[in-house]
Amino acid sequence: MNRRELTKVVTSLENGASLSKALYARTGRAHVVGITGPPGVGKSSVIDRLIDELRRQKKTVAVVAVDPTSPISGGALLGDRLRMQRHSDDKGVFIRSLATRHHQGGLTDATPQIIHALDATGFDVVIVETVGTGQDEVEVAEVADTVVVVLMPELGDEIQRAKSGLMEIADILVINKSDLLRETPSSHAIHPGERKWHRPTVYTSAKTGADISTLCGLTEAHQLSLVSTGELARRRARAARSEVIRLLQSTLAASILRELEGSWAQTVLTDVAGRKLDPGVAVKMLTERIFKNNHRSTNHGTERRRRKTRRRIKAGR
Amino acid sequence: MNRRELTKVVTSLENGASLSKALYARTGRAHVVGITGPPGVGKSSVIDRLIDELRRQKKTVAVVAVDPTSPISGGALLGDRLRMQRHSDDKGVFIRSLATRHHQGGLTDATPQIIHALDATGFDVVIVETVGTGQDEVEVAEVADTVVVVLMPELGDEIQRAKSGLMEIADILVINKSDLLRETPSSHAIHPGERKWHRPTVYTSAKTGADISTLCGLTEAHQLSLVSTGELARRRARAARSEVIRLLQSTLAASILRELEGSWAQTVLTDVAGRKLDPGVAVKMLTERIFKNNHRSTNHGTERRRRKTRRRIKAGR
Repeated sequence: MNRRELTKVVTSLENGASLSKALYARTGRAHVVGITGPPGVGKSSVIDRLIDELRRQKKTVAVVAVDPTSPISGGALLGDRLRMQRHSDDKGVFIRSLATRHHQGGLTDATPQIIHALDATGFDVVIVETVGTGQDEVEVAEVADTVVVVLMPELGDEIQRAKSGLMEIADILVINKSDLLRETPSSHAIHPGERKWHRPTVYTSAKTGADISTLCGLTEAHQLSLVSTGELARRRARAARSEVIRLLQSTLAASILRELEGSWAQTVLTDVAGRKLDPGVAVKMLTERIFKNNHRSTNHGTERRRRKTRRRIKAGR
Repeated sequence: MNRRELTKVVTSLENGASLSKALYARTGRAHVVGITGPPGVGKSSVIDRLIDELRRQKKTVAVVAVDPTSPISGGALLGDRLRMQRHSDDKGVFIRSLATRHHQGGLTDATPQIIHALDATGFDVVIVETVGTGQDEVEVAEVADTVVVVLMPELGDEIQRAKSGLMEIADILVINKSDLLRETPSSHAIHPGERKWHRPTVYTSAKTGADISTLCGLTEAHQLSLVSTGELARRRARAARSEVIRLLQSTLAASILRELEGSWAQTVLTDVAGRKLDPGVAVKMLTERIFKNNHRSTNHGTERRRRKTRRRIKAGR
């Protein structure tokens, strides 16, 4: 697939198309690296430097940057991700920003599918960048093989609190902007002989480029560890499960919205707003109706066949 | 209801109980004020000062503070909300922190129900505090009559970007920590004769207490404007709709999880993980099954009755 074809596929996936069966069958080869952390720690700059390092090693890289766009305004914000665009002439690099509009939580429904498309196209490394606030941090852990959490020295109070959640998903911890420190601690080394992965801490500076190659080496070491311990298969099974759950939820959400447009549902909602009916009872009534109507529609073929059979029996054929 | 009874009711709602029909019928009287904004702008301190002001006016106040707890760690964080607890001896004040564990997005499923319970108990004002990042800002707009967005001078780059979403839901804009400014601009006045609401900007300092009474007066003015323009009824109808949708979604999500535990679904998921089946087809298979099984179970009574009738007809009774 050339760049133009790939861009087309990604756009169609973003607009709700499904990945073809053929493409899905070719997935599972790329190393999917999730990079997350609070706003302002320099995630995009770290990724920009990582691209340089991976390209030096002749590896191809795709970056999916997930933008926490307001669901109301709905516009895509590029901001400092523009910096990465300097790689846009390099055929071994593909960068795409996705807006998270119309989606509860962090990643869009299309994100896993877009990762699959990039994987199937043959990129060696697929980087997924998200802002680590609330739900995103869990979701990035669900799609990535390796989770890199980026922090910086001296973070504010509420961000320090949010850190605990981030630490739990980190395979590698990066303290970026380490040039701000009077003395930079040395990055933790990994223990080559050991099978169990001990989360290392790397003190990088995207500004000076310090320890970016260490970070790059660690992501690769983590991938090797995933394979040798069998953890990769477990993570991939978990990723498949959460992708299916996510898709199921949006399918059912669509059924809900369809049902709510009907006049019967409108009456129910008006009664709830008027305090004549409580929300719990309303939900019970609507749930039964959704299951009934959708069962009928998905079951249409079977029902018709049954009726035909009955008619035949009656007619003595 | 006394405080102990109320605490019990709120806890049971938080643990998944439903609001009684009797309590729901008594709701709709409180003024629900949503207070949201980025981390660190001093939302809790502003609320603390607002409580003082409302109590001076002999109004009773309940505060629901929604904590963006990591869904993985699951612990509730109280932090600087502890400061508000100095009101805990005051019988006209009720404060409760809710953790958002196990919930995609901002508010928990229980939040609207807890607001209803506080409303039905007779609190004049119910304040809902959320951190304005991503989904929360939309959700707070769905449950509140009046949305107050709190910002501060000199916010970082990514927060400035997030502001655009917040501005769209703000009925009143607060620039807190205005004591940091060399010159504090005067707060925008409201235009008493005018029907249409023009979003005012208030420059407060929770530290010195400056312009907190102006803010308090503006929330009241907004409530009056909602009533006189008929906007209140529209907002309440929207709130009822989104509460029902949220409950419907979690009901259906529970059906999904139940289905996925079965061995049939496990085989499907294993095939997806092994790239033998693509996620789109898997979702189609699972959706059909969920609708079928749930239709059967919700329809159980009707089916039995029908069979009984058929038997009676056959027997000639």
